Amino acid sequence: MKVTELGERRIIEIIKSRLETMPGMPVPFGDDVSAVQYNRNTLAVLKTDMLVGKTDIPPGMSMRQAARKAVVMNVSDFAAKGVSPIAVMVALGLPRSCTEEDVEQIGLGLNEGAREYGAHVVGGDTGEASDLIISCSLLGFCNKMTLVKRSTAKPDDIVAVTGEFGKTAAGLQILLEQKAVPKKVEKPLVDAVYVPRARLKEGTALAKAGVLTASVDSSDGLAWSLHELSVASSVGFRIDNVPLASEAVEFARVFGLDPLELGLYGGEEYELVVTVNPDCWGKVESVIKNLESQLFRIGTVTKEKKIELRTEKETLTIEPRGWEHFKS
Amino acid sequence: MKVTELGERRIIEIIKSRLETMPGMPVPFGDDVSAVQYNRNTLAVLKTDMLVGKTDIPPGMSMRQAARKAVVMNVSDFAAKGVSPIAVMVALGLPRSCTEEDVEQIGLGLNEGAREYGAHVVGGDTGEASDLIISCSLLGFCNKMTLVKRSTAKPDDIVAVTGEFGKTAAGLQILLEQKAVPKKVEKPLVDAVYVPRARLKEGTALAKAGVLTASVDSSDGLAWSLHELSVASSVGFRIDNVPLASEAVEFARVFGLDPLELGLYGGEEYELVVTVNPDCWGKVESVIKNLESQLFRIGTVTKEKKIELRTEKETLTIEPRGWEHFKS
Repeated sequence: MKVTELGERRIIEIIKSRLETMPGMPVPFGDDVSAVQYNRNTLAVLKTDMLVGKTDIPPGMSMRQAARKAVVMNVSDFAAKGVSPIAVMVALGLPRSCTEEDVEQIGLGLNEGAREYGAHVVGGDTGEASDLIISCSLLGFCNKMTLVKRSTAKPDDIVAVTGEFGKTAAGLQILLEQKAVPKKVEKPLVDAVYVPRARLKEGTALAKAGVLTASVDSSDGLAWSLHELSVASSVGFRIDNVPLASEAVEFARVFGLDPLELGLYGGEEYELVVTVNPDCWGKVESVIKNLESQLFRIGTVTKEKKIELRTEKETLTIEPRGWEHFKS
Repeated sequence: MKVTELGERRIIEIIKSRLETMPGMPVPFGDDVSAVQYNRNTLAVLKTDMLVGKTDIPPGMSMRQAARKAVVMNVSDFAAKGVSPIAVMVALGLPRSCTEEDVEQIGLGLNEGAREYGAHVVGGDTGEASDLIISCSLLGFCNKMTLVKRSTAKPDDIVAVTGEFGKTAAGLQILLEQKAVPKKVEKPLVDAVYVPRARLKEGTALAKAGVLTASVDSSDGLAWSLHELSVASSVGFRIDNVPLASEAVEFARVFGLDPLELGLYGGEEYELVVTVNPDCWGKVESVIKNLESQLFRIGTVTKEKKIELRTEKETLTIEPRGWEHFKS
């Protein structure tokens, strides 16, 4: 069977099944980050995520933006766990057609991505490759008790997200399918693709306040994130509100699309999807207010492992689908 | 200017020039590993090195061997610094033609490479790429005082290496140029390519004993390693003995090649090149004897920044060349 039939998730399963598990591994395989116990209280936290030109760089994205994004997509996973990155390592594969200018722009983008989130690029490796490859690895440290896992959401917890959805999915359609929309709508949609932001400030402040029961980032789409949280925590979700960006709603209207489809099943959107014990909701609101940031309550964790969306008119099932390499 | 004209080393210079340096970075850019100060005495040590199918996998190397090698080439850099790796992260780019069997073999090889050196694979990422890409990142910890840098070799130090040279260069010629030699000679030469070994045991024991003044691995060839040590430490070398593997000497004889060329300017050879204060040489010998390992004294560090090879007949200059991506 070819990898194109297996898909990214099955490939990861196969690799995992061939690995000896580190004894006492503090974060299980499949969470947003990996970790090693440094001492009784401290974890060294690691993340590796690879950007490949062919599949991960949409038309019109500059080398600088691509390099910055390669860092940011890793930072987003740290954000979901409430951990600040300190150091970035970079493995860089360059096609023979790359120029000195490209290399400079990549250097600038890597530095930008790291410095925006308080980290530094400390080393790496480069070699020739057929595609542009920018594989970043992050290191950070955290107190063992503050790292927020995927597996600890509890029934009756509140589900919340750090932003509105749908912009990246719409922006990607503009870039990949040359869909034309008014500039005023186009700019924020395309910017969401070119200059993604990780919710590090929100993730670390909420983790530090000890108010989250579980957390994941939404890089493979909101629906997929809910699915992952559901599997990891053995719970379900009753969602009653999917906050959609007004520009995404407008884009959907112009092209006769379902805005919910953009909001639920997109990807490359780096919001956090968190669960909160209802008793802590007030504290969560005050943390977010102090950051001058936003958090949208979108539903409730349920005992039953279904993921449903209740609208005024009907109850829909949120399907376990989203971005997947090899299959998408 | 294209990257093929710039070459790997200039590309790294350009990227570095665009990066803000981490304040108090304990290991400078360009050493074998990177490091972050965790606390007053402890460093978190990082390494990222990427294997690309097109350039780094010779004919006949299995997927399992390639994955193992992707880990081992990183471990070798840790060995040179005297640091044990704990955790391995993997970014895996797979061409669409890869099969389920390939993925399994990659999993097995990654696990093998890690476990041989006491580490575990703790996480990673996979995606589609035109080439097979296996980018590994290692994490380890060490006492700040024991990490052996490149920049601290002193005139009159003894230069030594952990093994004989030339096998990999000969093995690569067998595989890439279909050079036929008797099986008895071919097997060890080809095995040196397919199943490289990192000198972790030697590197960590010598570092722990505090007997090395500087160290580097020889992954880009012995000549290039001496050149790098020379630049980093502002010293030169008078080499009077390049230990050559008997199979490499035999290979050179059959094909009318200069065995020294194989020994000095090959690459993908994972020996350590270390410098030792003469007062510590006895201790070095006892450490190596306890490990039932080998160390060959090859020359002396000089104040003058030339790198010379003195044979019975003549004095030759060891040129600053070796394996370089994009140019090789």
